[in-house]
Amino acid sequence: MPRYDAPIRDMKFIFHDVLALQNYSNLDGFADATPDIVDQILETSGKFASEVLFPLNSVGDKQGCKRADDATVKTPDGFPDAYKQFVENGWPLLSKTPEMGGQGLPHALSIAVSEMMSAANMAFAMYPGLTSGAYEALMAGGSDDQKQIYGPKMATGEWAGTMNLTEPQCGTDLGLIKTKAIPQGDGSYKLTGQKIWISGGEQDLTENIIHLVLARIEGAPEGIKGISLFVVPKYFVNEDGSLGERNTVSCGGLEEKMGIHGNATCVMNYEDATGWLVGDEHKGMRTMFIMMNEARLGVGMQGLAQAEVAYQNAADFARERLQSRALSGPKAPEKPADPIIVHPDVRRMLMDTRAFIEGARMFSYWTALYGDLLHKSPDEKVREKAGDYMALMTPVVKAFLTDRGLKACNDALQLHGGTGFTKDQGVEQYVRDVRIALIYEGTNGIQALDLVGRKLAANGGRAIFTFFAELDDFIAENESDEELKPFIDALATAKGELQEATSWLMQNGMSDFNNAGAASMDYLELFGLTALGYMWAKMAKTALAKRGSDPFYDDKLVTARYYISRILPETSAHLAKLKTGAEPLMALEADRF
Amino acid sequence: MPRYDAPIRDMKFIFHDVLALQNYSNLDGFADATPDIVDQILETSGKFASEVLFPLNSVGDKQGCKRADDATVKTPDGFPDAYKQFVENGWPLLSKTPEMGGQGLPHALSIAVSEMMSAANMAFAMYPGLTSGAYEALMAGGSDDQKQIYGPKMATGEWAGTMNLTEPQCGTDLGLIKTKAIPQGDGSYKLTGQKIWISGGEQDLTENIIHLVLARIEGAPEGIKGISLFVVPKYFVNEDGSLGERNTVSCGGLEEKMGIHGNATCVMNYEDATGWLVGDEHKGMRTMFIMMNEARLGVGMQGLAQAEVAYQNAADFARERLQSRALSGPKAPEKPADPIIVHPDVRRMLMDTRAFIEGARMFSYWTALYGDLLHKSPDEKVREKAGDYMALMTPVVKAFLTDRGLKACNDALQLHGGTGFTKDQGVEQYVRDVRIALIYEGTNGIQALDLVGRKLAANGGRAIFTFFAELDDFIAENESDEELKPFIDALATAKGELQEATSWLMQNGMSDFNNAGAASMDYLELFGLTALGYMWAKMAKTALAKRGSDPFYDDKLVTARYYISRILPETSAHLAKLKTGAEPLMALEADRF
Repeated sequence: MPRYDAPIRDMKFIFHDVLALQNYSNLDGFADATPDIVDQILETSGKFASEVLFPLNSVGDKQGCKRADDATVKTPDGFPDAYKQFVENGWPLLSKTPEMGGQGLPHALSIAVSEMMSAANMAFAMYPGLTSGAYEALMAGGSDDQKQIYGPKMATGEWAGTMNLTEPQCGTDLGLIKTKAIPQGDGSYKLTGQKIWISGGEQDLTENIIHLVLARIEGAPEGIKGISLFVVPKYFVNEDGSLGERNTVSCGGLEEKMGIHGNATCVMNYEDATGWLVGDEHKGMRTMFIMMNEARLGVGMQGLAQAEVAYQNAADFARERLQSRALSGPKAPEKPADPIIVHPDVRRMLMDTRAFIEGARMFSYWTALYGDLLHKSPDEKVREKAGDYMALMTPVVKAFLTDRGLKACNDALQLHGGTGFTKDQGVEQYVRDVRIALIYEGTNGIQALDLVGRKLAANGGRAIFTFFAELDDFIAENESDEELKPFIDALATAKGELQEATSWLMQNGMSDFNNAGAASMDYLELFGLTALGYMWAKMAKTALAKRGSDPFYDDKLVTARYYISRILPETSAHLAKLKTGAEPLMALEADRF
Repeated sequence: MPRYDAPIRDMKFIFHDVLALQNYSNLDGFADATPDIVDQILETSGKFASEVLFPLNSVGDKQGCKRADDATVKTPDGFPDAYKQFVENGWPLLSKTPEMGGQGLPHALSIAVSEMMSAANMAFAMYPGLTSGAYEALMAGGSDDQKQIYGPKMATGEWAGTMNLTEPQCGTDLGLIKTKAIPQGDGSYKLTGQKIWISGGEQDLTENIIHLVLARIEGAPEGIKGISLFVVPKYFVNEDGSLGERNTVSCGGLEEKMGIHGNATCVMNYEDATGWLVGDEHKGMRTMFIMMNEARLGVGMQGLAQAEVAYQNAADFARERLQSRALSGPKAPEKPADPIIVHPDVRRMLMDTRAFIEGARMFSYWTALYGDLLHKSPDEKVREKAGDYMALMTPVVKAFLTDRGLKACNDALQLHGGTGFTKDQGVEQYVRDVRIALIYEGTNGIQALDLVGRKLAANGGRAIFTFFAELDDFIAENESDEELKPFIDALATAKGELQEATSWLMQNGMSDFNNAGAASMDYLELFGLTALGYMWAKMAKTALAKRGSDPFYDDKLVTARYYISRILPETSAHLAKLKTGAEPLMALEADRF
């Protein structure tokens, strides 16, 4: 039977042993995040994910969402009830600010919770995930009134939020937006236009939906500098907080998609819909960017999450499926054949995924902690570094974790053989669901361009140089430790290659921007591999110190060794490729492809 | 609009310029394959693929196959009519032997035709593809009577054939087969058992279906040495060739699958079904293996074929979709944005696929030509080499082309952005359809094991040493050519790494078979990369010689340079990984995954 068991032991290891959250009690809300509280939150949310959300995962895939002629949308059976429980349990409030009724706990912890929800049911988890994104945007850019009207109900999840960016003619290039906003003289605007691919644009989970919409005020400058952000509620909110009339925004249709069938992907039609400006005129993109780091981190988690659930079921299948004998002689002679986990190539797929997952989990929680430090640290230098790191790491988390997450899901399918291609065990759903994570919130190619074009260069390269200095310090501190040495040496090699790639980019990317573009994806891969190498070295150090108390630490060291010997060597190919420059890519005329 | 245009220019280049089929007119049937005839066949079959099969591709995906209560199966609308045309046009007869009514043309040519059919509609092309496989097995192992009864109608495609291997408890490990065959004393057997995942097990395309079935004769030895092959017709064939009564074999259900919905994947129930032994008792696997090289080559072609159709549509999208400006400044200032093909990272995906496709096409046609030489050469030494090469290259073609084919389809989807994830343009179907090709006819992991465990060692390594000697000769002959030198140098490096990996395997794989298993997939990748490097060097040599007569040759050189600079450098990572040996993979206890 397919299953999802929350990887709580590993989460505890990261939070308590490696990141040591208990040492950050000077930050708001962290004192409340005692190890006991953290464990309890992980366990109860993991149970909810496994027992409530996971059984609905295949239901959602098979049923999908249905739009009726009256433009209402029905989510799959069980989704509304599960959503009700989700809200009643208070999961959305975990790390939200107490002013809005939240618990104010660390963001890093809520990232772990969202990993579990997403692993159990990605299509479901997107509804509250996007609500959180919209909520954060309102908190970042909205007026006090707007925060007061929409904030508390969005914080609890009683109301949902959506992000309306894409139009048929524009995805990446939001400067091409056509949706018009006409000021009404009373502070409100009338919005007209069509938005597409709006996740949760309409549904039957919440009594209200708060749409955040990018549009162009009549007479605004062309391009990206003329885009404003509006809040457009499905139902207007009366002064007493009750719901009023229906706004003229409606779902014009649902997309047929490869995966995440349980999530309603809507065409949204705005027909003189009433909305209010969020933040300043023509500055809509600024607010969007504020919340984008968090949203992208969340998408990266989806890659990791689907990899985790796929891995668990692949490991089960590998232990249960009897087929052929071990190359080294029968391991289960009493059975008609050995379980396929005896075969090295089956283990290759499992270990590849395991080493990715555990490294990626550490990397994303570590990055999320910088999100907490950015918002909560009293020390300006710490906040500066945290902001630099969030900016630098976010595109890597988003793209590297989703690219490798897809690979992991495909490996899990492959391990299932023919069974994997059928709908029997549900593993092919993970491949189809995770696929979108490489695309939305900025395609992975856009992440790579953001990394090399914007993040590396910002503040004269301050972020990347700080990171290199941190790696150098870590290497210097630990290279004399005999047991740690293999990890330190491997990290030093990867770091050297990343540094060489960075220098190459600085020398060649400025003189010809196409060199930067051509190098971008290989640079991002090299960065991701190195960052995970650092995470693995940190985890190995902790595991060596704790070894003996729990076989968990021995397993951790096995997986760490696998990472440095069987995954990290990929760095050199990326370095070689990126140093070729743009010429091999740009030489062919467009019409010759 | 999605399209498939047969890549005939490239096929002509391979057949006429590089392989120079015209030089093999001493082989049976090759004299008939004049350049004019070859071109005509490519063009008419390409037209059929584009105009008849491709429009049915998305129809097949959406409708799928339907099984009625009477156990009949309906294929998608348009499939029966297209199949009728396919048979009437005589495509199945192309390379079949004249004794069975075939045209006896080169096998290499029929591989090109099957590439086009498969690219246009993989689910459709599987019906005749499996018929050909079953036909070849009967030709290889059947009695003269059996050949006479079934051969001619299977050759034309009027009757279909199927391969019945898998049962619920056995896929890879066919020694676990349970289907029973009881001799009836009159030369016939009664077969009882259940077979699963039988492609085309039931359909409405042909008036009869000839099932080849692996089963165990009562009292046969355990395991793989007790497996026999039977022919079990759906309808018995009367002495005059007309169809008689219905046999007791029927379709018990259809699988729900990730892709290839247009192909009926059947559970087949044999209930005292009458069959006849093909070849000797308990020697069924031998006949299966005879035909397996060809079948695996065909599966490799599916990877290439789906990559080609995905590439064409991705290139169209990249030329048409306007989004953002080129990094080096606007390229289409009169438009609201530039076509995305101006972006280096978009080109990276296109060029990766293009360099893969063209190299893989050359590699598979080159391998297929050895299939012709094996069967038709009058020279024993040539036949020996051809047999060695077919055996050595087949697992590489199968696994490398499908692995990279999936990557190519995923890149094409990625290039489409959000559109790729929806069902609008059909690109996500290529990803779902091609996925099975990594699994069936032996998973890619099994191919890798076959390569390192069987093919390398056969005859004291004769095949691989012959290949290395051929590479050495080619390098020595061409290294003084200045223009060719970059390709020769790159090939020499890759060849050196493959040789090092081979030595490592010979030293470490025998003492611990797990070392061979752990290295197998990286070895196969390294082999595939090197083999394509050789193909690219050969093509570059030809293109350099012909340059000036057609811009096609300049494009070929651009793509060749891309291959050696941006793909071939992957070899070193595979070498580094495989030299770690089995320990990192085997260290973890099975219950700790």
